Amino acid sequence: MSDDQEQHDDEQAGAEVGEITPRSEDFSRWYLDVVRRAELADYTPIKGCMVIRPYGYGIWEHTRDLLDARLKATGHQNAYFPLFIPESYLQKEAEHVEGFAPEVAWVTHGGANELEERLAIRPTSEAIINSLYSKWVKSWRDLPLLINQWANVVRWEKVTRFFLRTTEFLWQEGHTVHATEEDAEEEVLRILEIYRSLIEDDLAVPVVTGLKSQGQKFAGALRTYTLEALMGDGRALQAGTSHNLGQNFAKAFNIRFEDQRQQLRYAWTTSWGVTTRLIGALIMTHGDDKGLQLPPRVAPYQIVIVPIPGKHYLESVVPAAKSLRDMLVKAGLRAHLDDREEHTPGWKYNEWELRGVPLRAEIGPRDVTKGQTVLVRRDNREKAFVSLDNVAQEAHELLESIQQGLLARARAFMADNTRQAADYATFQEIMAGPRGFVEAPWCGDEAGEADRIQEDTSATVRCLLTDRTADGPCVVCGKPAKHVALFAKAY
Amino acid sequence: MSDDQEQHDDEQAGAEVGEITPRSEDFSRWYLDVVRRAELADYTPIKGCMVIRPYGYGIWEHTRDLLDARLKATGHQNAYFPLFIPESYLQKEAEHVEGFAPEVAWVTHGGANELEERLAIRPTSEAIINSLYSKWVKSWRDLPLLINQWANVVRWEKVTRFFLRTTEFLWQEGHTVHATEEDAEEEVLRILEIYRSLIEDDLAVPVVTGLKSQGQKFAGALRTYTLEALMGDGRALQAGTSHNLGQNFAKAFNIRFEDQRQQLRYAWTTSWGVTTRLIGALIMTHGDDKGLQLPPRVAPYQIVIVPIPGKHYLESVVPAAKSLRDMLVKAGLRAHLDDREEHTPGWKYNEWELRGVPLRAEIGPRDVTKGQTVLVRRDNREKAFVSLDNVAQEAHELLESIQQGLLARARAFMADNTRQAADYATFQEIMAGPRGFVEAPWCGDEAGEADRIQEDTSATVRCLLTDRTADGPCVVCGKPAKHVALFAKAY
Repeated sequence: MSDDQEQHDDEQAGAEVGEITPRSEDFSRWYLDVVRRAELADYTPIKGCMVIRPYGYGIWEHTRDLLDARLKATGHQNAYFPLFIPESYLQKEAEHVEGFAPEVAWVTHGGANELEERLAIRPTSEAIINSLYSKWVKSWRDLPLLINQWANVVRWEKVTRFFLRTTEFLWQEGHTVHATEEDAEEEVLRILEIYRSLIEDDLAVPVVTGLKSQGQKFAGALRTYTLEALMGDGRALQAGTSHNLGQNFAKAFNIRFEDQRQQLRYAWTTSWGVTTRLIGALIMTHGDDKGLQLPPRVAPYQIVIVPIPGKHYLESVVPAAKSLRDMLVKAGLRAHLDDREEHTPGWKYNEWELRGVPLRAEIGPRDVTKGQTVLVRRDNREKAFVSLDNVAQEAHELLESIQQGLLARARAFMADNTRQAADYATFQEIMAGPRGFVEAPWCGDEAGEADRIQEDTSATVRCLLTDRTADGPCVVCGKPAKHVALFAKAY
Repeated sequence: MSDDQEQHDDEQAGAEVGEITPRSEDFSRWYLDVVRRAELADYTPIKGCMVIRPYGYGIWEHTRDLLDARLKATGHQNAYFPLFIPESYLQKEAEHVEGFAPEVAWVTHGGANELEERLAIRPTSEAIINSLYSKWVKSWRDLPLLINQWANVVRWEKVTRFFLRTTEFLWQEGHTVHATEEDAEEEVLRILEIYRSLIEDDLAVPVVTGLKSQGQKFAGALRTYTLEALMGDGRALQAGTSHNLGQNFAKAFNIRFEDQRQQLRYAWTTSWGVTTRLIGALIMTHGDDKGLQLPPRVAPYQIVIVPIPGKHYLESVVPAAKSLRDMLVKAGLRAHLDDREEHTPGWKYNEWELRGVPLRAEIGPRDVTKGQTVLVRRDNREKAFVSLDNVAQEAHELLESIQQGLLARARAFMADNTRQAADYATFQEIMAGPRGFVEAPWCGDEAGEADRIQEDTSATVRCLLTDRTADGPCVVCGKPAKHVALFAKAY
C-alpha cells in the first residue's frame, strides 16, 4: 500500500498477521496491523490499490447511509456521471488541470484500438459534471441544482496508506449550481455543518472547521472550507472539504441561466466530498493497544454474543444465545452470534475486542438458568449482569453511552493537544515534541512563511480559524498577522 | 449513445426533447425519447457513456436496495475490489481473457509516467477477486465465502444504447467460493431465484429462466443460467446471469483449502450479476404511447400531488396539498408535491404520466371543503374520490394493485408472444412477422445450426429450457433434437 511500508508489505504478503504491534510502541505499524488483522482491508496486486473487505466495507455502508439521509433531507439527489473525462475537458479550467493532471491515470486504448483523445479516469468530476450542467441549466427556475454522486475516483499517488491515501478510493462528491454568490456560500456552509455532524455525532471524531489558505485550497476554487481531525499520534487528518467554486467553473463550462428579468447570467457552483479516508480517521482516533474500537453508530456488529461451554451447551446454551441474538436483532441492533466450535471464549473475547465490537454478551449455563447475560463494554471493560427481559433496552443504553464516551474521550485528547504559540521557538518545540494542533498568528504569506514552517518542522497550515482575529505579530516572520491559523503535521 | 442512433443524437444534442414519438409508431425512437424526456439519462461527451440523471438513478437505488436486502438475508456481504486488473492477471484463465480482452479499456499512463504493465479497467472482476480469494481461503472453515460488490465496469462497445448497452455501466457482481460442486450449484440456483424474484416481483418484468448454450455461456464458466425477458417490441433482453465457474478459476488462481481430513483441495467458485440494464427492461416492458410506467416498488415518486388553482388557492389548497404530502410520506409512501406556479394542472398531468408516476392525487378548492382528494391511476386512468381520512390506506392498496396489474399485463403479453415452431418455415415466418419467443427442438450444434438461424432470421438461442425434453427433430437440420431451446431476436 505504501512506498514507505513496502518492506513491511513484502514481509507479510500472504502471511496472516498474528498479534498486533501495541499502539504505544509503534503507531504506524499498529495501524497497518489493525487494518489487516481486523480484516478491514488488504493489499492487492495493484500498487497503491487496496481491497476493502466486508468488515471495513460495512463501516463504509453505515457511514454512507447516515450521510446520504442527511443529504436527501436537505434536497440533494443522487446521480451517476461517467468515470472518464476527455483530456480537453479537464483542460478547460486552468488551475484545475494544473492541480490534477500530474496524478491522473490515462486510458489510451479501447480494445485493440488507440483512442483519438486520451481519457482521464476521474480524479474528481467537476469537468464532466459542469459540462452537463451547462446543458441542463437554462432558467432561474432550474436553480438550485443539487446533485450528489457516490463513486470511485483515481489519483496516482506515490506514497499510499490504507484508507488514508490510496490510488483508487470511494467517496461522494456533491456538485451544485446556484443563482447567487450568497446561495452558493450558504450551501457550502450547510454541507460543512452536515459533515461536522456526521463526523462528530456518528463517527465520534471531533473536528476543527475553518478555511483553507489560498495555497491549500482546491484547484479551481474561490475558497475551500475544511474539517480537520487530530489522530492519536498527534498528526492532523483532513476529514472533508466543501468548496465555493465562485464562477470559475460556470465560466469555463458556460453554465448560464436566464434570471427573472430575462437577463442571461453566469451561475455560481460548489463541490464537496468525503471519502473512505474517514475509516482511517476513526481507526486512528479510537483504537488502542488491544486493537480497533468502533463507534456503535457505524459498527458492522454492535454487539457480539459468545456462548460459554458447560453443562447442556448444545441443548440449552446455544439455543439461548440464538434467541438472544434474535431478540436483539428484532430490537434494531446489529447483533452477531459467534458459535464457532473451534475457538475458546477467551480467544473470541480477544478477537472481537481487536475487531472493535463495542459490546459483548456472554451467556453460559448458569446465566441461562438465571435468565441473564453478562454485557461487557469494549471501551472500559465494565461488566453488567442483565436480565434477558430487558437486555435490548440495556444494550441500547450502553451503546449510546459508549458512543458519547468515545466522543468525549477524543474531545479531551484534542483539547489536551491543542496549544498556542506566540513565538517561533515555542512553535518548533511543540512540533519536535508532543505535536498536535498549534494555534498561532500568521501573516498569510504562503510562499515565504508557510514553506519555511514546513521545511523546519514539517507542519502545514491546516486551516484559518475564521472566528478568531489575529492581534499580534506572525509567529514566523514577526510581520503583522492577518489570521489565526491552525498548524499541524498532517497525514 | 449508439452508432445506429448517431444521426438522432446529433440532431438532438443539446436540444430539449419535446413530444415523445408514440411507441406504436417507432419503438426505438420512442425509447430514446422517453429516456431523455423523462430525465432518466442523457448523452455525455464520452462516446458510449451515459449520465444517469437523478430520476433514473432513483430507480436504480430502489432496485439496488431491494436486491441488497435479499443478498444480505442469504448471508452475502458486500466488499470493494480494485477498478484495475493487471494484464497478466486477466490472462490467467484462457477462455476468460479470450472473451473479454477485445472489449477492455487499457490504462497505460499514471501521471506523466508510462506503466510497466498495462492495467485493464475491470470488464468483470473474476481475475482480481479470485487472486485475493487464494490468499483468504485456507480451510474448509472459511467456506462458503459469499461476497458481493456494487461497482462500475467498462466494456468497450461498438454499438451502445441507453441502459441496455453502454461502455460504462453499474452492476453488482457476486463471487463465491464453495467446498463442493453441489454447494456451488446450489448457490448459482439460489441466486437465479433471487434475481427472478427481484425482476418479477419488484420490477414486474416476467422472465423465462434457463441454461445458456455452450456457445453463449460466460467466458470461463462451466455453465451459465440466465433470465430472459421479452420487450414490448417482441425482442428478448437478457436480464441477469448466474455462472457456475466449476474449478476453472480456482485452478487458474490457486484457490485451495484444507478439507476436514487435512487434504488440500481446489475449491468451486461462482459469479453472478445484474446491471443498470434492468432499467431499460422496465421501460420497454411497461411503457406506452404516453411515456414511462414505473412499477410502484421502484418508482422514485409513487404518488404525485397536484393542487388545482381556484378559490383560496394559496390560503387553503396549497396547505392542504402539503399536509396530504406529509401524511403520505409519514405512511411510508414516496409522495411528491408539484406546486410549481408556472405550469397548469393539465401540463402537470401529462408531465407525470410521461415520467411514469403510478398514482396522481388531485386536490382543488372543492376537494378541500369536502375533505377529499381524487386519486388517478397511471395504468388505466381510473379515478377514485377518496376521503383524506383514509387516503394513505387507499393509496397503498391502489399501488399494490398497479404493481400486480403491470406484472399480469406483461405476463399476458409474454404468453401471447411465445410460440412453438416444429419446422423451420414456421420459425422463419414468426421471426419475420410478430417475433417474440419461439420454443423449438434444437440439435445443439452451435457452429452449424445456431449460426444458420442467426444469419437467416437474426434470432439467437436465448436459453435451453431445462425442464423440457426434446422429442422431435431439430427445427433447423432435422437431426434428433437434444434440447428444447428458446429463440428470439435479442437486444
